[in-house]
Amino acid sequence: MQREKETMKKLAKLSIFNTLSKKMVWGFILIIFLGSLLLSLPIATSHQQGTALIDILFTAASATCITGLTVVNTATHWSLFGQVVILGMAEIGALGYMTFAVLLFNIIRRHRSMGLSTQLMVKESLNLENLSDTKSVMKYVIGLSAVFQLGGVGLLAVDFIPRFGWKRGLYVSVYHSVMSFCNAGFDVFGDSLMRFRNDSYVLLVTIVLIVGGGLGFLVWRDLLLYHERKRLSLNSKLTLTTTGTLFVLGFVILLVTEGNLSGLLGDHMSWVNRTINTLFLSVTPRTAGIVTLPTNSLHSGSIFLIMILMFVGGTPGSTAGGIKTTTFGVLMLQSIAQLRGREDVEFSHRRFSQANISRALLLVFLASIVITLATLVLTQTEKIPQGYGLEYIVFEVLSAFGTVGLSLGLTPHLTVIGKVIIMILMFVGRVGIFTSLYALSKRQPKVSRLRYPEENILIG
Amino acid sequence: MQREKETMKKLAKLSIFNTLSKKMVWGFILIIFLGSLLLSLPIATSHQQGTALIDILFTAASATCITGLTVVNTATHWSLFGQVVILGMAEIGALGYMTFAVLLFNIIRRHRSMGLSTQLMVKESLNLENLSDTKSVMKYVIGLSAVFQLGGVGLLAVDFIPRFGWKRGLYVSVYHSVMSFCNAGFDVFGDSLMRFRNDSYVLLVTIVLIVGGGLGFLVWRDLLLYHERKRLSLNSKLTLTTTGTLFVLGFVILLVTEGNLSGLLGDHMSWVNRTINTLFLSVTPRTAGIVTLPTNSLHSGSIFLIMILMFVGGTPGSTAGGIKTTTFGVLMLQSIAQLRGREDVEFSHRRFSQANISRALLLVFLASIVITLATLVLTQTEKIPQGYGLEYIVFEVLSAFGTVGLSLGLTPHLTVIGKVIIMILMFVGRVGIFTSLYALSKRQPKVSRLRYPEENILIG
Ligand SMILES: [K+]
Ligand SMILES: [K+]
Repeated sequence: MQREKETMKKLAKLSIFNTLSKKMVWGFILIIFLGSLLLSLPIATSHQQGTALIDILFTAASATCITGLTVVNTATHWSLFGQVVILGMAEIGALGYMTFAVLLFNIIRRHRSMGLSTQLMVKESLNLENLSDTKSVMKYVIGLSAVFQLGGVGLLAVDFIPRFGWKRGLYVSVYHSVMSFCNAGFDVFGDSLMRFRNDSYVLLVTIVLIVGGGLGFLVWRDLLLYHERKRLSLNSKLTLTTTGTLFVLGFVILLVTEGNLSGLLGDHMSWVNRTINTLFLSVTPRTAGIVTLPTNSLHSGSIFLIMILMFVGGTPGSTAGGIKTTTFGVLMLQSIAQLRGREDVEFSHRRFSQANISRALLLVFLASIVITLATLVLTQTEKIPQGYGLEYIVFEVLSAFGTVGLSLGLTPHLTVIGKVIIMILMFVGRVGIFTSLYALSKRQPKVSRLRYPEENILIG
Repeated sequence: MQREKETMKKLAKLSIFNTLSKKMVWGFILIIFLGSLLLSLPIATSHQQGTALIDILFTAASATCITGLTVVNTATHWSLFGQVVILGMAEIGALGYMTFAVLLFNIIRRHRSMGLSTQLMVKESLNLENLSDTKSVMKYVIGLSAVFQLGGVGLLAVDFIPRFGWKRGLYVSVYHSVMSFCNAGFDVFGDSLMRFRNDSYVLLVTIVLIVGGGLGFLVWRDLLLYHERKRLSLNSKLTLTTTGTLFVLGFVILLVTEGNLSGLLGDHMSWVNRTINTLFLSVTPRTAGIVTLPTNSLHSGSIFLIMILMFVGGTPGSTAGGIKTTTFGVLMLQSIAQLRGREDVEFSHRRFSQANISRALLLVFLASIVITLATLVLTQTEKIPQGYGLEYIVFEVLSAFGTVGLSLGLTPHLTVIGKVIIMILMFVGRVGIFTSLYALSKRQPKVSRLRYPEENILIG
């Protein structure tokens, strides 16, 4: 009797879980659809020349999934109206992901009996662990976003207003601040930040915005509450350690492979400026997609490294895609523990559950399958131009799946099938493989695997 | 007291395990060294022109690790003597790996007190599970090798003697039969099997030899004993299932990507012949390295697929390198189980131990690190020619690590550092990452992780 009740409870929980995953996926699709409607208006393009339907959908998907891969030039093709629509979609994509989930949480919380299942759903969509914190996180989402983005506007305006005049200067300050913080990769300069290569101030402000947005709200809250709590969660520690390690490793390797950009930027640019450009290059693959250099002119070693960084991606609960730093971190720690002959996977005096490790493994496995299939199909539908190899396709696939937005040049030349595939990759990369799978599955999951130990790290 | 005794026992076990891993690695190095000595003799080269030391070492390593990557053309550079030395190293590399371990087993078995540890070592080196079977396996190693290789000589001679005359015909029959069965990839034709594209008979015999050698002796014994036992081991079932799945998938995908080779071989070649060439192409990446077509003329989709197949590699306890089919299989099954919300990873009414899964995961992780590091260094030391991309390097790295021997053309142009890296990859790919690590580790492993449940599958 008791057992039956528990089983029923579990099934109800999973059913809601399933339903809400569907709702979230449909919510994203709705945003893309509404944005597409606005972008198809005549006033959305600069010369009212209209845009092909597939390109409208692609742009809307790229903006909503805060990727930044573009099939038309944002600066020249879209009118001010169109550009603002794209900005709005990116902001909704970045913050709405969370807001949407929190709203759902508040609506359904009234049904106390379904409390846990809804909370689990919110956890899934927010990648939160401690559910009681949802409201508090929401405060931080809005607060932090405002502080970073407004601060970014102010700092950038100092450089941009003298450069572009009041009106244009303020506009590009807002646009660039929001896009950098959202790690969205769209720009209204027409060539990303290439013209600012020598402007270390703009690059450094942008780096702070990218890292700020890319770290994720949960980590930020943990950091800001540190003086009270005197501890960080396991999740924050693992995120910061993995992010830091990959960042330092990436920077050092890029210093070597590009020879601190002396080849690419020439020796007339100062050593400090070149180092800041290398720093920028090591920050952008995590999810930003903003560039100061043409990606396809980089050394093959750098491109290989960037592909790995894009696959790993950023922090869960942030603007990032990819398999996420925690997934990478927990599998690395598992391997190290195994190598040392340890039974348990430990980090910072905590133990990871087997469920966590299995979930991480599954995620990497599914991501590999998605990437492999997409690459295989694209090798059939797309043409690799003279002078490029297979990385011309794989790079774009990883960039889309990681919602990064870097490109070796394929995206603007994509066939229609190719555009659809990259759109699917951006979408799956953004909402997450697990959420996508839940939303796709018709049947209810059979057995509960939602066993959570006392403290978990976030996977996916 | 009892506890202390057990700890001492464990340490003794691990110490031997450690020592014997070292011995096996040194045994391989000894074979490479002795082979190099013979290859450095003036009579080893066809015009007594001598060979650079690094090329001698590379050839010896490639032969002993039965890879087949070559820096000089086997057919023209080496004399008959040199070619026979290479053949001998390949045969020793393939069969000696096991024989060496069995000899060790027999020598140390006298020390009854160390029985288990030695057995564990033999298990490790042979990738055997049931230790009592070692002698019986040895019988099969020699028996099967003889049957396959002599059978191969006979079948090939039917084609080669009329073609090349008695003396040369018999020689190339022996050479090609042994190299095919050992999956060693060396050839004395100068262009692998390209001239036999139209000769379906030779291709089909070669496919049988490749698959026969690549399946591994344990699987063969299981198959041959099936009429008695009426069951296959979990290991054999998983191996056969994964191998079969990858084989069929690979064949079908290659049929699509190459359009059944109508582009590459032209429509004047019969449909059946082209299908057999496609079949050959789907068999060779697993570990053979014998080709009927220039690999660098293949479609980028095919090259991508072949890279994945080379990474997976073949059966443990066979002539193969790579992460092995069982590793891939168990991780796939783990992911599917996780996806279905199952606690246990099951296959064919058996359950995999958590230790197995962890070991598989560790192996993939270590393999990825090795491949990533090697690729990064090679992007710095090697030059990618016009018309190629990053795959020019990654392909060669995967080919070496998987002891496959396929090439997009880099190997003959490798720098000295590049040659050393590819040699290390072939070596690690052959003796296994775990054995290499045991051999490298100075300290004794601290805690025993050698917990084996009743029935295991083989990882690594
Ligand atoms: K992005
Ligand atoms: K081989």
